[in-house]
Amino acid sequence: MSVEGVHALVRRTHEERVLRVLREHGALSRGQIAAKVGLSRTTLSEITGDLLSRGAVVVVDTDASLRAGSGRPAELLTLDPSSGQFLGVDLGHTRVRIAVADAAHEVMAAGHQTYGPDTGWPERVAIAFDLIDDVGTGSGVSFRALQGVGVGVAGPRPAEPAVAQAFRERFGTTVIADNNTRFAALAEAITEGPDLQDVLYIRLADGIGGGLVVGGRLVTGGHGVAGEFGHVPATGPGAEPDPCRCGRHGCLETVASVPAVLRTCRRRGLAVHTAEDLEAALRRGDPVAAAVLDEAAVAVGQVLAAAALVLDPAQIVVGGRLTRCWPGVVDRVAATIAERAGTATPRVVRAARLGDEDGALGAIAALYRQTPLLAGYH
Amino acid sequence: MSVEGVHALVRRTHEERVLRVLREHGALSRGQIAAKVGLSRTTLSEITGDLLSRGAVVVVDTDASLRAGSGRPAELLTLDPSSGQFLGVDLGHTRVRIAVADAAHEVMAAGHQTYGPDTGWPERVAIAFDLIDDVGTGSGVSFRALQGVGVGVAGPRPAEPAVAQAFRERFGTTVIADNNTRFAALAEAITEGPDLQDVLYIRLADGIGGGLVVGGRLVTGGHGVAGEFGHVPATGPGAEPDPCRCGRHGCLETVASVPAVLRTCRRRGLAVHTAEDLEAALRRGDPVAAAVLDEAAVAVGQVLAAAALVLDPAQIVVGGRLTRCWPGVVDRVAATIAERAGTATPRVVRAARLGDEDGALGAIAALYRQTPLLAGYH
Repeated sequence: MSVEGVHALVRRTHEERVLRVLREHGALSRGQIAAKVGLSRTTLSEITGDLLSRGAVVVVDTDASLRAGSGRPAELLTLDPSSGQFLGVDLGHTRVRIAVADAAHEVMAAGHQTYGPDTGWPERVAIAFDLIDDVGTGSGVSFRALQGVGVGVAGPRPAEPAVAQAFRERFGTTVIADNNTRFAALAEAITEGPDLQDVLYIRLADGIGGGLVVGGRLVTGGHGVAGEFGHVPATGPGAEPDPCRCGRHGCLETVASVPAVLRTCRRRGLAVHTAEDLEAALRRGDPVAAAVLDEAAVAVGQVLAAAALVLDPAQIVVGGRLTRCWPGVVDRVAATIAERAGTATPRVVRAARLGDEDGALGAIAALYRQTPLLAGYH
Repeated sequence: MSVEGVHALVRRTHEERVLRVLREHGALSRGQIAAKVGLSRTTLSEITGDLLSRGAVVVVDTDASLRAGSGRPAELLTLDPSSGQFLGVDLGHTRVRIAVADAAHEVMAAGHQTYGPDTGWPERVAIAFDLIDDVGTGSGVSFRALQGVGVGVAGPRPAEPAVAQAFRERFGTTVIADNNTRFAALAEAITEGPDLQDVLYIRLADGIGGGLVVGGRLVTGGHGVAGEFGHVPATGPGAEPDPCRCGRHGCLETVASVPAVLRTCRRRGLAVHTAEDLEAALRRGDPVAAAVLDEAAVAVGQVLAAAALVLDPAQIVVGGRLTRCWPGVVDRVAATIAERAGTATPRVVRAARLGDEDGALGAIAALYRQTPLLAGYH
């Protein structure tokens, strides 16, 4: 390698590290960048000066909270927003949602399209492609510098490889695919800030799924099925005699999913058939609805208490349609966790902040984090 | 920076990456090193040739299983064994164990010393220092290139910082301190090979503790207390009416620790006071001992089944004195996990392989893995 080549290589390596943390974290001050990449402020200033002059990096904002000793607010730098687009897709059981974000972490466009629950994967993918075209056209967002596509796929997992391959062929770029609830867990975790390390996320909806962030990383598990909170045996008073769709008995999903709660209410004489019915019953103070929901929340709390003792998360996030039926669900879950796992360790138990866009946003977050390896710079 | 400086920097960076993977993994072939550091074989050959000629790296062995196409067995390289010593210390409730390993991952010396359960932490540390001196003198191992000390500390956690500080002052080197059962988990995980990613480890002894390896990393949790399997509520038929030492009721530790099993046996009329008594009773086929141990194993299996559904480990390792009382314990745990968590996902449930040296070996493994950051090479 020539001497010039070597010099260029070192410079490029420094630059890559700066660009990588900006890609992963969005807007950062120079001080934050220096801390994250481990470069001196002097070396960093040279690098950012050059990147700014070339337009690869831009000043987006000033953040008074990061005010330096000089009294000047710290400037926040990001990647040139137009330098890349990141597409997140959430292929659920009855609808697809997409979101497009730029390299500065701003969501530029989003959309959704419903389909029947019996729609096959090839058709779902075709509907997603049409939606992406429509959203692009409607919003004026181009995908000319598409950096990657993250695709969240509702279980079962076997659909993921074929779906990923279809997106890869269509877009000719990096595609990552994972369970959509796991992506939602990542999205919820980073609503707290990009550095939150340990989060448990559970979603109480038509089924019960979840995801874990451990040490700042989304956990996939040894076989790609981590986060199966729905099939943990539930031991609460509401435990269900009917078998779960997995074939076993007493799974949390048979106690605390929306259909399970509705079924238990009906068995106790309350005619509810949808989450909206349940919500209305709760709002008018129906004691059966309140008791069944309470039992479900206790069962969820018991399962999460055991997981919290093992994993020691900083936050536990409870989301999904059931939690939106009655805000008290999350409080009841929190109280059960405190009772069963103790309060010696401070644990934040909170409701999910994101809505149905969580899967698509988590897919984008995973793309930002899937940073290129330093490998191969010889 | 001068041109010579730049050139030297690139070379040093390559070298550091090679040395780092050898430090972390022990003996590796050139092909394995190339894959792990992401250098081409050509670039790597230059680096390893230079490191070999300087004696920083040595050929330790040939591994026929890594035979190259040429028919020659692949050579395994390691760091020069004498280039560094790594000291592992396990400060338990009633004894300290130490182990010393070299930079090639060979254990050079080991020893242990008992003390009373009421011994304070400063005295335990003083006993450990004496033991280290004795083992060094007795084995002829010098600590002249001590690279670090890993100290496993039996709970509760608050002792760790003071203990770490005492070792830091004594040895003037890097000291890492963590729970000794967590270090044992790491040691057990890597008995399977350096790359095992997802392992749950539980130890059934005077108390019940555990550790997790997720994505190849030891999990500490948001507050440093991950792995508290002992205080997960146990729901098996052996659930205990007396409160746990944590103040709550029904913790796994009140059902499946050695003292809990002995207590339950006594309550049912079997006079056993030590693990050895229990072992003898089991060997002569005592039905009370068998039933109590079976109930304990089922409770452990239920707790691990829930954790396995959430974490999706490749392996679940069950160790501690109780498992050595009767080999069937692990099989019963495995059967319960299969029953409660299903068999769709292949999970290996196995007995621990290491003995009481596991904590000290895990502390050393953690040192190997605590690789210096690439930061600061400007």
